[in-house]
Amino acid sequence: MSLGALRVNGQRLRSGLQRMAEIGATPAGGVHRLALTDEDKRARDILVSWLKELGLGVSVDEMGNIFGRRSGRNDSLHPVITGSHVDSQPNGGRFDGILGVVGALEVLRTLEEHRVDTERPVMLVNWTNEEGVRFAPSKLGSGVWAGKIERDWAWRRTDANAVVLVDELERIGYRGALPCAGWPFHAYYELHIEQGPLLERNGQAIGVPEGIVCLHVYNVFVEGEANQVGPTPMEGRRDALVAAAEMILKVRELPAKMGGDMVATVGKLQNHPNSRNTIPDRVHFTVDIRAWDDDLALRSWDEVKADFEAIAAKHRCPMRIEEPWRVPHTEFAPHLVRRVRSTAEALGYSTLSMVSGAGHDATYVSTAGPSAMIFVPSIGGRSHVEVEDTSWEDCELGANVLLNCVVNAASEGGA
Amino acid sequence: MSLGALRVNGQRLRSGLQRMAEIGATPAGGVHRLALTDEDKRARDILVSWLKELGLGVSVDEMGNIFGRRSGRNDSLHPVITGSHVDSQPNGGRFDGILGVVGALEVLRTLEEHRVDTERPVMLVNWTNEEGVRFAPSKLGSGVWAGKIERDWAWRRTDANAVVLVDELERIGYRGALPCAGWPFHAYYELHIEQGPLLERNGQAIGVPEGIVCLHVYNVFVEGEANQVGPTPMEGRRDALVAAAEMILKVRELPAKMGGDMVATVGKLQNHPNSRNTIPDRVHFTVDIRAWDDDLALRSWDEVKADFEAIAAKHRCPMRIEEPWRVPHTEFAPHLVRRVRSTAEALGYSTLSMVSGAGHDATYVSTAGPSAMIFVPSIGGRSHVEVEDTSWEDCELGANVLLNCVVNAASEGGA
Repeated sequence: MSLGALRVNGQRLRSGLQRMAEIGATPAGGVHRLALTDEDKRARDILVSWLKELGLGVSVDEMGNIFGRRSGRNDSLHPVITGSHVDSQPNGGRFDGILGVVGALEVLRTLEEHRVDTERPVMLVNWTNEEGVRFAPSKLGSGVWAGKIERDWAWRRTDANAVVLVDELERIGYRGALPCAGWPFHAYYELHIEQGPLLERNGQAIGVPEGIVCLHVYNVFVEGEANQVGPTPMEGRRDALVAAAEMILKVRELPAKMGGDMVATVGKLQNHPNSRNTIPDRVHFTVDIRAWDDDLALRSWDEVKADFEAIAAKHRCPMRIEEPWRVPHTEFAPHLVRRVRSTAEALGYSTLSMVSGAGHDATYVSTAGPSAMIFVPSIGGRSHVEVEDTSWEDCELGANVLLNCVVNAASEGGA
Repeated sequence: MSLGALRVNGQRLRSGLQRMAEIGATPAGGVHRLALTDEDKRARDILVSWLKELGLGVSVDEMGNIFGRRSGRNDSLHPVITGSHVDSQPNGGRFDGILGVVGALEVLRTLEEHRVDTERPVMLVNWTNEEGVRFAPSKLGSGVWAGKIERDWAWRRTDANAVVLVDELERIGYRGALPCAGWPFHAYYELHIEQGPLLERNGQAIGVPEGIVCLHVYNVFVEGEANQVGPTPMEGRRDALVAAAEMILKVRELPAKMGGDMVATVGKLQNHPNSRNTIPDRVHFTVDIRAWDDDLALRSWDEVKADFEAIAAKHRCPMRIEEPWRVPHTEFAPHLVRRVRSTAEALGYSTLSMVSGAGHDATYVSTAGPSAMIFVPSIGGRSHVEVEDTSWEDCELGANVLLNCVVNAASEGGA
């Protein structure tokens, strides 16, 4: 790559991110922009207006995924796609998802500004309901598009107030006519914040993920015996919360015990009857195990499950386990990963090879065609929180890598 | 006591308990009769109708406490009082509280039936809001009556829906005109289920509590750092739930470590944001410590608090502690305790000296005058649950002890 490589307009990128951060802004500096709410609609409307200002064709599919298409010299070639999601976590951050959408927009704006004609069409995408917080599971838009989730099932998902997803698509005006079904594409690039501390710790600018770790999720239910705490001696108690506490510590110790590169977390716990003066008789908690090595994750579960069984027996607390899903690890297309690295290096940016610990729309998209991601540093590794932050400079560097990856891919021949 | 001692009518006692168990009956055989609800009103109405059938004077005070008075030969003497409460835990049992009310009624019915004229008046009482579940704190009716809780403050207590206590008293027709202020009494006896396993384990019929253990309550708040679990390595995590789990195990180990007779429990825990894929950043839990020896309870707290501080420091999780209340242990009047034991023995029932691990209306009443309690076995030690149970025979034995204690006290001279 020559020193004459294209660069985005960092100031314009920042303005776009700041405009989007106003939609659902929280007092502590984050955003609360849950999927298919009025805030999501406003962010979508702004995105669509920006795409139209560029003179691009905009289409919306029946899952509400938004596509902006910039024609290539040869419009019959498979397009290059780039994007992410505008929905956020509850009281989440200003960069998760939206950076990949505004970054893609900045790529398109730069191409227009410099009148760059690419061989292939370039498309921006905003995927519906990536976070999966209001409507579970996550990544519904990209999942249906990639053929991994059934459209009608996705439409019927409900939120905590029993509001149905397809009704909300209709209500906010984003139930499009276009069938939600993937078409052949040449490459998919997604720019995203790292959501972890590795880039910052290593002092590197661009993260080059080889793929996404596997995700194994378990629901554990422990049963005890409820009794008034005062008159019930310690001997003979069957306290479900005490048993669960021992299990939580086993989960915490698991990665060190297994010796591999993995994480294991209890994020959710519900205690019943949750009264100060009654011994807990029902505790539910989740176990989330992630590793690049699917087999390590499975062996870790076997190990900790045996610990759980011993703890349950010791406390005479019957235990039940649900295994709701196991998603194997995702490997991105090696030639696209190589291009991310070489493009960053050609631009003079330091890089770090890594794997993504979080799932992304690229998880599903990569099952439909060659995909890769570009990470930029998360300050303090913080994410899913209002203080989530990335420097404007790092956003710009990431967008420059995205721009040049897209231009290179869009100039390639073939189908 | 002669073999000619009075006996209650066991069948009638059982019918009364069964009738009350219909009010707020749950499918699993318990009762859900929260204070000042429609169910509480129905139970009160039935109680009042039964008292009136006996020709007794009924009065209601401004806290909704209900009194039924049977005159003595000398009505100027201080009365003997007996009773408990008709409100229940959520999905609670058929005996907690109501046994002491229906037992007291059976005492009055037996006195009428056998035309027993006592020297002193005998009064039945139903105390308002003993459980403290709908309106916190517990024992509001007896607390105001004993002068330990301010009436206006009690009136202003609200439930989870912001409904005000005094408005509910008004609504159900039990805001009486009588001032809620204790008057001199000769003796107070409260018949209650043990709510623990000791009588059953020891094969004894009648529990003779020397008093009620102290109750020390603490609220612990642990703070961690929320992050997406996948991209956040185990090293450097600040997981508030892991820290809390270690603390819970320290509470569990505390009684054995301190070597004294005490219980320590974490009954309530709230986890935030309580999402599978976010590291917990705020955990709140309660610590409930009870012992007969107030000083042992205090030393235990110092011990476990030091453990908490070390755990918080190790996990770099700041901790905050609230100490909402400490209630010292209650000693019942020794001469009344002796009479419970001797009366039971004279009736041929086995007895067990113990202390009450649970608080009761007798906690407050005993601050106003000589008080004692009579315990009967809880099957399996279960209480505050729908399967709470006591044999009809044991109910009858307990009521016989209550009857003869009341008759003896009511025949005594003095003021």
